[in-house]
Amino acid sequence: MSETPKKSPVRRATVKDVPAILGFIRELAEYEHEPDKVLCTEEMLEKTIFGSQPYAKVLIAQTEEGIPAGFALFFYNYSTWNGKPGIYLEDLYVQPKYRGKSFGSSLLYALAEELVAVDGGRLEWSVLKWNTPSIEFYKRIGAAPLEEWQMMRVDGATIGNLATKSPGILDS
Amino acid sequence: MSETPKKSPVRRATVKDVPAILGFIRELAEYEHEPDKVLCTEEMLEKTIFGSQPYAKVLIAQTEEGIPAGFALFFYNYSTWNGKPGIYLEDLYVQPKYRGKSFGSSLLYALAEELVAVDGGRLEWSVLKWNTPSIEFYKRIGAAPLEEWQMMRVDGATIGNLATKSPGILDS
Repeated sequence: MSETPKKSPVRRATVKDVPAILGFIRELAEYEHEPDKVLCTEEMLEKTIFGSQPYAKVLIAQTEEGIPAGFALFFYNYSTWNGKPGIYLEDLYVQPKYRGKSFGSSLLYALAEELVAVDGGRLEWSVLKWNTPSIEFYKRIGAAPLEEWQMMRVDGATIGNLATKSPGILDS
Repeated sequence: MSETPKKSPVRRATVKDVPAILGFIRELAEYEHEPDKVLCTEEMLEKTIFGSQPYAKVLIAQTEEGIPAGFALFFYNYSTWNGKPGIYLEDLYVQPKYRGKSFGSSLLYALAEELVAVDGGRLEWSVLKWNTPSIEFYKRIGAAPLEEWQMMRVDGATIGNLATKSPGILDS
């Protein structure tokens, strides 16, 4: 009369998940009111996440039938204060029809497990300031807003302009 | 009568630079009014940056005599909108006695070169909101503040608490 342990809804993504991942990225950008910002293609995901030099990792949350319901895309960052890696969660998304079934929190808990596995110190992510429902959810699970720091960004043509001024990098 | 081309002041760090790097990390934390936050040791830097799985890279800015004057510590991040990696600059520091000699801008330009080399889309970093001299410097080189995003963080014991709730991660 023993119960079969419930299979985890979280699994590591493979290159076969690329179409689902790109769909999630697009849906999340729509939710963030920025549908036109997604320049990413399936080919780019294959190369940058499942190629020879992966820049990010992906966890898939799936239904009991194996249907992808959402995803977490993350990479390792680093804290010089801690002298340890951390995890930066770039995207967390669960499709509306699958919300309220703990897929989102399961993905976050799985990321904490990943962080412990590398002896990491921090789990971090960014949220749009108007997205108060998400901010409240994150605070409930123990996250704190970093109020004192301002993120800065250089992108577009400015990158190339700055690069032309580089004095070069010597190998030691 | 040809001029000898000036040697670049920027080079890649090696494990021999660990004592200098830790010194810079501590000086920067003092400047940030957080000297007690540095838990990092030389051993931790050796393991996490110069070990078998490096989580960050370091560029050293040095004088013509080869004396380290400052450093940039960075890692690759990822943008799902771009489908490309980016560079996140965790620490940029030049010792006070070496300021005004373009070491800081040389490090930033070298990072832009690194970004171009990986076909990256963004160069990002965080700055303390009260640090207006740095913010003004960053704006002059073409950086924009990301006003609409709020950084969130989970650290300390909360990480372990969340990890215990993980449903596990299946391999695909």
